[in-house]
Amino acid sequence: MGELRVIAFLLAFSPFITAVTSSQCSTNGIPLVRDISTLPQDNYGRPGLSHITVAGSLMHGLKEVEIWLQTFAPGTHTPIHRHSCEEVFVVLKGSGTLYLSPNSHAKTPGKPEEFQIFSNSTFYVPVNDVHQLWNTNENEDLQVLVVISRPPVKIFMYNDWLMPHTAATLKFPYFWDEHCYQTDVKDEL
Amino acid sequence: MGELRVIAFLLAFSPFITAVTSSQCSTNGIPLVRDISTLPQDNYGRPGLSHITVAGSLMHGLKEVEIWLQTFAPGTHTPIHRHSCEEVFVVLKGSGTLYLSPNSHAKTPGKPEEFQIFSNSTFYVPVNDVHQLWNTNENEDLQVLVVISRPPVKIFMYNDWLMPHTAATLKFPYFWDEHCYQTDVKDEL
Repeated sequence: MGELRVIAFLLAFSPFITAVTSSQCSTNGIPLVRDISTLPQDNYGRPGLSHITVAGSLMHGLKEVEIWLQTFAPGTHTPIHRHSCEEVFVVLKGSGTLYLSPNSHAKTPGKPEEFQIFSNSTFYVPVNDVHQLWNTNENEDLQVLVVISRPPVKIFMYNDWLMPHTAATLKFPYFWDEHCYQTDVKDEL
Repeated sequence: MGELRVIAFLLAFSPFITAVTSSQCSTNGIPLVRDISTLPQDNYGRPGLSHITVAGSLMHGLKEVEIWLQTFAPGTHTPIHRHSCEEVFVVLKGSGTLYLSPNSHAKTPGKPEEFQIFSNSTFYVPVNDVHQLWNTNENEDLQVLVVISRPPVKIFMYNDWLMPHTAATLKFPYFWDEHCYQTDVKDEL
């Protein structure tokens, strides 16, 4: 794992400017074997985030799974959100907190349960459960490999835990899918 | 990633006797957050292999994805095989060779293409393509995270690259799924 430690180092000191370009979308042909350290990374407008699509649907042509490498600076977090796919995390570095509201018949997520996550741990988010991942460790980045099913991801976002499920906002394509999604659209002149 | 390096160390020096027991199957309730270093590992009858089901279907109740952590000693390899699911690898350590016969209308896989894989690389195997992964590096273990869709995996195995597709042998449940598969069977007395 020493080599991925190098990746963690590179991410930590990267200026986050390696944006995705259309030449990196699957319609342009993708090498079967790819060097993760050369893949595009970006914060997609969220300071303290680094996101790399390691193996993706729109970017690399996968149909059933997608893998991300994400790093969260101390104090940063995902939105409160849900998606109708399975999601499994492998924590490569750091620690943090998963907030999870089990899917129920209530109209809002309500107060979430808290789970402590740590380096070398794995955890999953059940389909449609509302959740949020925080780097609650003030001293270290949190780095995770994320696996989702049913790509590309369709994310419903909540302003807070008391927002009704019906008021959650769909963001699709998601920020890191926007570029390749656009290049997939056929010109229907 | 330093902590997963510790896992690599533990794997390398483990006597490979941490077998799966029925208490570790999903019917018995699985913690949402799990410490990977405490998960059962075994070589399942293949000397030089270490397999850990990090997040599994039969073992942990997932429906759409499954994640394995596998280590191959120098010179060891998978069988020649195919499966009707997507499979994505992230190489954590070492290097090796992927042999891949693209799915075609031929009656046998035929001579495979060779792809060099290396630490920090990612690669995928298209659905139903016949393939084999070798640790062709004499000096280092090859360690990979493997993601598959449509678990539990149904593997068709070939004796060689000239064996007809129709003669390939289905192994289901696969070796690391056998124990939890058995515990899923209901007694119909």
